[in-house]
Amino acid sequence: MIAEILCVGTELLMGQVLNTNAQFISRRLSALGVTQYHQTVVGDNAERLEEAYRTALSRADVVITTGGLGPTVDDITKRVAAKVAGKALVLRPEAEAMVRERFSQYHKEMTPNNVSQAMFTEDTAVLLNPNGTAPGAIVQMGGGKVVVHLPGPPREMEPMFVDQVEPYLRKRSGKALISRYIRIFGMGEAMVDERLRDLELGGNPSLSPYCSTGEVMLRATASADTEETARAMLEPVVDEVCRRLGDVVYAVDDDDRGSLAKRAVGALKRKGWTVATCESLTGGMIASTLVEVPGASDVVKGGFVTYQSVAKTMLVGVPAETIERYNVVSAEVASAMARGARERLAVDIAVSATGLAGPGGGTEAIPVGTVFLGISTAERTVTIPLRLSGDRARIRELSMKNALDALRREVER
Amino acid sequence: MIAEILCVGTELLMGQVLNTNAQFISRRLSALGVTQYHQTVVGDNAERLEEAYRTALSRADVVITTGGLGPTVDDITKRVAAKVAGKALVLRPEAEAMVRERFSQYHKEMTPNNVSQAMFTEDTAVLLNPNGTAPGAIVQMGGGKVVVHLPGPPREMEPMFVDQVEPYLRKRSGKALISRYIRIFGMGEAMVDERLRDLELGGNPSLSPYCSTGEVMLRATASADTEETARAMLEPVVDEVCRRLGDVVYAVDDDDRGSLAKRAVGALKRKGWTVATCESLTGGMIASTLVEVPGASDVVKGGFVTYQSVAKTMLVGVPAETIERYNVVSAEVASAMARGARERLAVDIAVSATGLAGPGGGTEAIPVGTVFLGISTAERTVTIPLRLSGDRARIRELSMKNALDALRREVER
Repeated sequence: MIAEILCVGTELLMGQVLNTNAQFISRRLSALGVTQYHQTVVGDNAERLEEAYRTALSRADVVITTGGLGPTVDDITKRVAAKVAGKALVLRPEAEAMVRERFSQYHKEMTPNNVSQAMFTEDTAVLLNPNGTAPGAIVQMGGGKVVVHLPGPPREMEPMFVDQVEPYLRKRSGKALISRYIRIFGMGEAMVDERLRDLELGGNPSLSPYCSTGEVMLRATASADTEETARAMLEPVVDEVCRRLGDVVYAVDDDDRGSLAKRAVGALKRKGWTVATCESLTGGMIASTLVEVPGASDVVKGGFVTYQSVAKTMLVGVPAETIERYNVVSAEVASAMARGARERLAVDIAVSATGLAGPGGGTEAIPVGTVFLGISTAERTVTIPLRLSGDRARIRELSMKNALDALRREVER
Repeated sequence: MIAEILCVGTELLMGQVLNTNAQFISRRLSALGVTQYHQTVVGDNAERLEEAYRTALSRADVVITTGGLGPTVDDITKRVAAKVAGKALVLRPEAEAMVRERFSQYHKEMTPNNVSQAMFTEDTAVLLNPNGTAPGAIVQMGGGKVVVHLPGPPREMEPMFVDQVEPYLRKRSGKALISRYIRIFGMGEAMVDERLRDLELGGNPSLSPYCSTGEVMLRATASADTEETARAMLEPVVDEVCRRLGDVVYAVDDDDRGSLAKRAVGALKRKGWTVATCESLTGGMIASTLVEVPGASDVVKGGFVTYQSVAKTMLVGVPAETIERYNVVSAEVASAMARGARERLAVDIAVSATGLAGPGGGTEAIPVGTVFLGISTAERTVTIPLRLSGDRARIRELSMKNALDALRREVER
């Protein structure tokens, strides 16, 4: 089975939107063992879109579109596909019910042009969109070929693809394919690659690395006639990877939704501990990321954003002399922040971060990217110095991730 | 002048790499007024790449490739372009000097296969790569058409494009294109579309909408012989949009980097005010987003993450009876949180958020998505009830955005 991704939207050609959809779908397709030879982007232009459909359908079995399902005149993806299929768009009552339900859920009025979102060709399978008004679709194009329409916003597209398109593709391909995700923090890609080089087969099972800010994720995938066989093939590979990499592996999951925050919250729950944060350069990002995990309220008691120096003194009692003497970006201040937060919120453990995210303010002694983390428990208070590189956003994000990793390590100690 | 981007690399088809290159080049091209109708990705396969070159050259004047300039057998981008041009690759001494210099700078040995990086067709203009070993190229394909070869790694590609390709394109096109970005919060896309329908021309100037969580952005673009003329054509369109939409327009920018946080921080700076936050369901996201803005330290003093109910009492003095009597998700608690944060941090204004992000915990009286914001100044304390929909992440993000919008509105009152 050959698939081809066709992203529709002038905003992509203008560079206004980063095409994360193509990567997301590509990843999932390759995990499913579906081959891809081309990806195309075209604008909101009926003539060029029609040509792109015809080209894609001439070389692929499944053409997956993203974008252009909305109610405006610019949204031509469905209309042009119907034209290529030689069929008419009709109002599909089940789709209309979906659109109406979403509007009533959002407490919004449904304008007449929104009805167009419920129009599909007769033999189209309509896909539910739990996160937006535009349903997706699997459209029969003749000769066994299909066009799959997905909405453009990633938060609508991604669950629709995983929950509704993947089962369709899996059924169509007739193979069981199982993936597991090994998440690594604290070891660079080159080092991971070196340790695993002899395991990284393009074969079956396969093992492929993906990088994001400060993290490496490995996907191990096996394909077999049954899920059970695939799962059994995968087990020794996953075990061997974990053995070689040691405790930089922070999660082994059956889906790719694992995160440092989930691991930290899990560790806290197991130990029955509560946590507090005290954040300067991260400005609340550590707490907010912990709180992303459903059920975090059992363990996350609260925190402080001590952005200005004076707030460090006012909120968690960092002595003004400590700031004066050691600089606000120092191990001493990080330590006092963590201790102060732990005592004031009466929690079992507190984590703090102070540092210089830039772009300005760096000196030779304290360059941009200098960060100190603090971790305080009843037993001890430790600090971790970091020297990070990148822009303001990257330095803040890496600080947050290092803080979450330090937190889980201390809790699991 | 029409350009087309052709990204070469199996890693893109496998989803291993996010294609930021296409966005970067698209943005720069559209700022230059160069039109694009298609973008294509193909793998490291000579036959499919040759076909992709022929298709792209049949419809564009300038075809810009990324990737595949390295020394391995997989790196076929130059070789296939030379074949399509009907010319031979020869060793270009100036290119060889560039490659040798880079190797000596990196203290690496140059292996014989690296010489291939210095081979180009006779009439190719070689582009210096200050950040890597592979030079880029502008290759004459006949009929005035060219193929531009750029390396794959963004840190090599981006400066090469800006410093060497843009001057070439600017000289070639001779047109000025100006865009302005109108950012809207608090009005849905369908409503914006309805109010502006008669203005939304695909012509010149053009006006196009883009949506993200809770927000709509409009891009107005004009093309003319000079920047000045383009700017003058744009002005009445932007004014008319602002007049029709009113105060839901929170930013009109010359680049697309505007944000609710930037507007709020700007408003606070103009008034010389400091701000504090007190966050429950957003867990620090409001503060963290304010702090994303460089220079936020002038106005963001600090904040509280009062995630558990008891933290609301401990940190900002919300009376336990208020929580008991009105529920923790209530206007009364939001109001007490904002007032408490303002007083404890001695700031001019404080913003608070309490609500239910789900997935669990909803009741008929207080369903998931119920959120109360509080805004407190010396003069008054107001609360804003919200009924949001979507998953946990969306409810938290929308709460944050509404809080930033409420903050700027109160400061600008």
